[in-house]
Amino acid sequence: MKIQTDYQKLLERLESETKSFSKLGKPADYIPALAKVSPELFAISLITRDGNAFATGNHTVPFSIQSISKVFTFTMVYRKIGTAIWDRIGREPSGTAFNSLIQLEHEKGIPRNPFINAGAIVVADMMLEHCQNPKDQLLEFVRSLAGDESIDYNQEVATSEKATGHRNYALAHFMKSFGNIHHPVEEVLDVYFNQCAIEMTTDQLSKAFLFLANEGINPFTSEEILNPSRTKRLQALMLTSGLYDESGDFAFRVGMPAKSGVGGGIVGVIPRQLSLAVWSPALNNRGNSIAGIEAMERFTTYTANSVF
Amino acid sequence: MKIQTDYQKLLERLESETKSFSKLGKPADYIPALAKVSPELFAISLITRDGNAFATGNHTVPFSIQSISKVFTFTMVYRKIGTAIWDRIGREPSGTAFNSLIQLEHEKGIPRNPFINAGAIVVADMMLEHCQNPKDQLLEFVRSLAGDESIDYNQEVATSEKATGHRNYALAHFMKSFGNIHHPVEEVLDVYFNQCAIEMTTDQLSKAFLFLANEGINPFTSEEILNPSRTKRLQALMLTSGLYDESGDFAFRVGMPAKSGVGGGIVGVIPRQLSLAVWSPALNNRGNSIAGIEAMERFTTYTANSVF
Amino acid sequence: MKIQTDYQKLLERLESETKSFSKLGKPADYIPALAKVSPELFAISLITRDGNAFATGNHTVPFSIQSISKVFTFTMVYRKIGTAIWDRIGREPSGTAFNSLIQLEHEKGIPRNPFINAGAIVVADMMLEHCQNPKDQLLEFVRSLAGDESIDYNQEVATSEKATGHRNYALAHFMKSFGNIHHPVEEVLDVYFNQCAIEMTTDQLSKAFLFLANEGINPFTSEEILNPSRTKRLQALMLTSGLYDESGDFAFRVGMPAKSGVGGGIVGVIPRQLSLAVWSPALNNRGNSIAGIEAMERFTTYTANSVF
Amino acid sequence: MKIQTDYQKLLERLESETKSFSKLGKPADYIPALAKVSPELFAISLITRDGNAFATGNHTVPFSIQSISKVFTFTMVYRKIGTAIWDRIGREPSGTAFNSLIQLEHEKGIPRNPFINAGAIVVADMMLEHCQNPKDQLLEFVRSLAGDESIDYNQEVATSEKATGHRNYALAHFMKSFGNIHHPVEEVLDVYFNQCAIEMTTDQLSKAFLFLANEGINPFTSEEILNPSRTKRLQALMLTSGLYDESGDFAFRVGMPAKSGVGGGIVGVIPRQLSLAVWSPALNNRGNSIAGIEAMERFTTYTANSVF
Repeated sequence: MKIQTDYQKLLERLESETKSFSKLGKPADYIPALAKVSPELFAISLITRDGNAFATGNHTVPFSIQSISKVFTFTMVYRKIGTAIWDRIGREPSGTAFNSLIQLEHEKGIPRNPFINAGAIVVADMMLEHCQNPKDQLLEFVRSLAGDESIDYNQEVATSEKATGHRNYALAHFMKSFGNIHHPVEEVLDVYFNQCAIEMTTDQLSKAFLFLANEGINPFTSEEILNPSRTKRLQALMLTSGLYDESGDFAFRVGMPAKSGVGGGIVGVIPRQLSLAVWSPALNNRGNSIAGIEAMERFTTYTANSVF
Repeated sequence: MKIQTDYQKLLERLESETKSFSKLGKPADYIPALAKVSPELFAISLITRDGNAFATGNHTVPFSIQSISKVFTFTMVYRKIGTAIWDRIGREPSGTAFNSLIQLEHEKGIPRNPFINAGAIVVADMMLEHCQNPKDQLLEFVRSLAGDESIDYNQEVATSEKATGHRNYALAHFMKSFGNIHHPVEEVLDVYFNQCAIEMTTDQLSKAFLFLANEGINPFTSEEILNPSRTKRLQALMLTSGLYDESGDFAFRVGMPAKSGVGGGIVGVIPRQLSLAVWSPALNNRGNSIAGIEAMERFTTYTANSVF
Repeated sequence: MKIQTDYQKLLERLESETKSFSKLGKPADYIPALAKVSPELFAISLITRDGNAFATGNHTVPFSIQSISKVFTFTMVYRKIGTAIWDRIGREPSGTAFNSLIQLEHEKGIPRNPFINAGAIVVADMMLEHCQNPKDQLLEFVRSLAGDESIDYNQEVATSEKATGHRNYALAHFMKSFGNIHHPVEEVLDVYFNQCAIEMTTDQLSKAFLFLANEGINPFTSEEILNPSRTKRLQALMLTSGLYDESGDFAFRVGMPAKSGVGGGIVGVIPRQLSLAVWSPALNNRGNSIAGIEAMERFTTYTANSVF
Repeated sequence: MKIQTDYQKLLERLESETKSFSKLGKPADYIPALAKVSPELFAISLITRDGNAFATGNHTVPFSIQSISKVFTFTMVYRKIGTAIWDRIGREPSGTAFNSLIQLEHEKGIPRNPFINAGAIVVADMMLEHCQNPKDQLLEFVRSLAGDESIDYNQEVATSEKATGHRNYALAHFMKSFGNIHHPVEEVLDVYFNQCAIEMTTDQLSKAFLFLANEGINPFTSEEILNPSRTKRLQALMLTSGLYDESGDFAFRVGMPAKSGVGGGIVGVIPRQLSLAVWSPALNNRGNSIAGIEAMERFTTYTANSVF
């Protein structure tokens, strides 16, 4: 098929044009497990709504998904409790760094949105409320979305995060002082640090986000994950808040709902069309993959395809 | 044609369902000319990319477009100087109220985006730099976009804004102290207060924004206003920052790039499809038309059509 | 002696005039042990540099000294490490509430002064660094200053603080994320919550602060606690920062270096003359004893005696 | 007299020890008139309550008193309207830079204290309310305090300040937007920029502040400027807020109520004893005379005399 050939060539072109942008950044170094990842690694995977998959580079190498996991936990809770989620979390861009406490102080412990750390920690607290066994159920959910049973936590990463995550402890205790964390901080952060330590390949990530490009239906199981209206709403959140305080810039340059993580991954979708995952560990000063953003911008520019 | 009939009926349904939401808000009252507008007024106008127009309510009554004008001045400057605009203005959501000075102090006089007041004042300063006669040229530009020569400034409104706009004087002087305003504050604000005092109907507004749904081409003159890539980028800015600090919520509920004004107007577009303008003067506590947002949310919900 | 009679009468006058101001406030209620204290209790104790003591009201009833303890721990660390203390703590008024995190975020984990919670937590961390057994040594130090072996911790209060002190946990973890807490947060806060749970009477407090009015010499043991220059400096800190974000107002009204606690106590000194402790549990909205401030203002007004 | 000889020698010692500290800073350069002052200039003048005067260095060279003028205008208004002043200005240290707008935004246009720019601008507004001819009356007042008719405005400085004072225009318009400026901004700032442009020598300044060390009585005319209670209160304000956001540090190091200006002057008093003025144009990064602070710290250290 013509279109398949085109996408494969395009991904290869993106790799050759953008891979070297990684030299302008550097991998996250706050925990050893992330710091030791080679900045030379690079991968892109694309899967269309009808299941045609394309990939280039190290697309079968698992990496730490970090904040990308916030989309998974949010989705789990959103489908369980719906609009009640907004009693405890906002849906506005944060305007400040992903781990800032200032906004929380001004707004009495209500995080701006579910994709900054504070918001995801509240979501983790909700997981404890609504799941028997949050960590097992999360893994089961992600495996089902990606159609891949091999996905797992990296315990070394989770343990390192716990040992060094003082800022996240501060966020959790601070929100607890406002009454917006209901479980013990240790239990909430155990869920949170584990979700960040899930490891996936770009192939798996592109598949796991495909339900968003499929009006909320898991294409592998035909299960409705979210109804079309909520699928739209989740993508709006990703567009306005998915890349920390670089979200506006990313929307401007790329024009695609997406979520990034400090492991160097970014996954985006074009509604009703496709899902696209990129990975390059070197980050810019706002914590996003520098080559990854470049590749995604060129993707929407070369295809003249975006949500706008 | 079936589709035409449907849109007309839909607009009438939206009017009947949402008009009364205006009782939950109140019109802007900081200047007499705005305060005396009846909150009972209501209008919706829709125009498709191929020129089919639909309307209901007071769609031929002109009102003060206020901040909607920021899209017009930004477009004028963007097509003249392109990316140089970003040396002096950011493109991130503000995270704070539209007229806040806090962000400016932290970020050394660089406004977060062109749609908060500070950003639009810098754009007005750029107008003085790049236009012989900014106020005449702006009017000419807006008339051309809407294909309507009758559009004009309301001098009473402009004069009132000038007399009471102390916050905007503060913003302009503050940015001048950082070197980000190049002309005398009085001249810059003369442009700014006049642009806010343009009066248009929803019919005119829907037409004037249609170029955005037409890949940057003015459908009335076939002139390219912005190239497709810049058209995409402007819409991304509108989606992330078009409704002050309610932008995230509007994206979540409605899912359409749009711009609002404290006159009670909101105009949005669905790329490659249509432009939609609503007007209801009563505002919510974040300065946006309360019935207007409700109508636009129902529009995307009932049509299952949005950018996502 | 004439002067003695005068002070006794003056204290009684202050009690009769200001005790009822407690009706305008209410006791701290964040832990049961503080909430159950009767707002009717009231005490003033004064001791002159040459040892003449005066008192009225419930001056033998012990209460929770809370933040007043910050003067004791600061003094212990200051005499041990001197100016090195300023590598990790500032000496400016905070300008914000006593438990704010905003200033810490802007200033990279360095608290503004040792009398806001964050600063006192850093001092507690320094206690762990420089004392074999911080809790025992603190008690010993306070007992020696007051010349009274009966002073002790209230374990119920310390335990309650630990269970509800999420904001203080947030402060400690936040500073640890900046590297400004060197010991485990649990250990640091164990010292901190205990120091706040020391119980003393106004008689004991007035004695324990008398060294400040005696150029740094403990009048009961003749030991030099601080040299005269450091004694001056500590009093300056108390004057600019001793009453949270009400310090400026207190300096204006009273004009005396002092330290308050949410238990309702305030202790102040007039250099080279006297020490004065008041207690009334009902607090104003800035966390200071409402009748206590009133009594101290009248004291300096009636005697025309202050540092100014 | 022995004591006179001592002070003269002490001032000379301070000059020789601290004059060269000016190399660590640099003069204010935002207007030409200030930038061209030689950083080599240095002066100290001291006058005791009973009229014995001492001086060293360039103590007869007039310089721009800048923010020191805030004490004069505050005193004029305080004696006229008393506590009503506190309806529109606070009396807490600011916690932020002298010209910050952030605090004003959070606190709805009420400046923290009369010695930050915003506070002094409100005082200037009050001057327009309560004086027939504010600029003439201010000059008359200052001349009377100093017992010297030669004191005058420097029109070149006033004009320069007006042309470059965008931050102060921002402050004034911002407060006007909250209703806390009652007169036109141009008129208010005309008073403000002129008061900053008064020129005085250290001899004149030390005399003009002597009433503060004399329980509020002008020692040259025996007129009561402020009653003893208000004299105390004004000195408390100076101690907590007289040196911008270095006030806490200055209190800690020097321990004297004082006021500084970006012209390089600092004037302080020891209640009931003396007034001390220093001048050295080179400033530290917080806008205070670097050699001036050093000289004053050594003064209180060598004499073991301060308010504490």
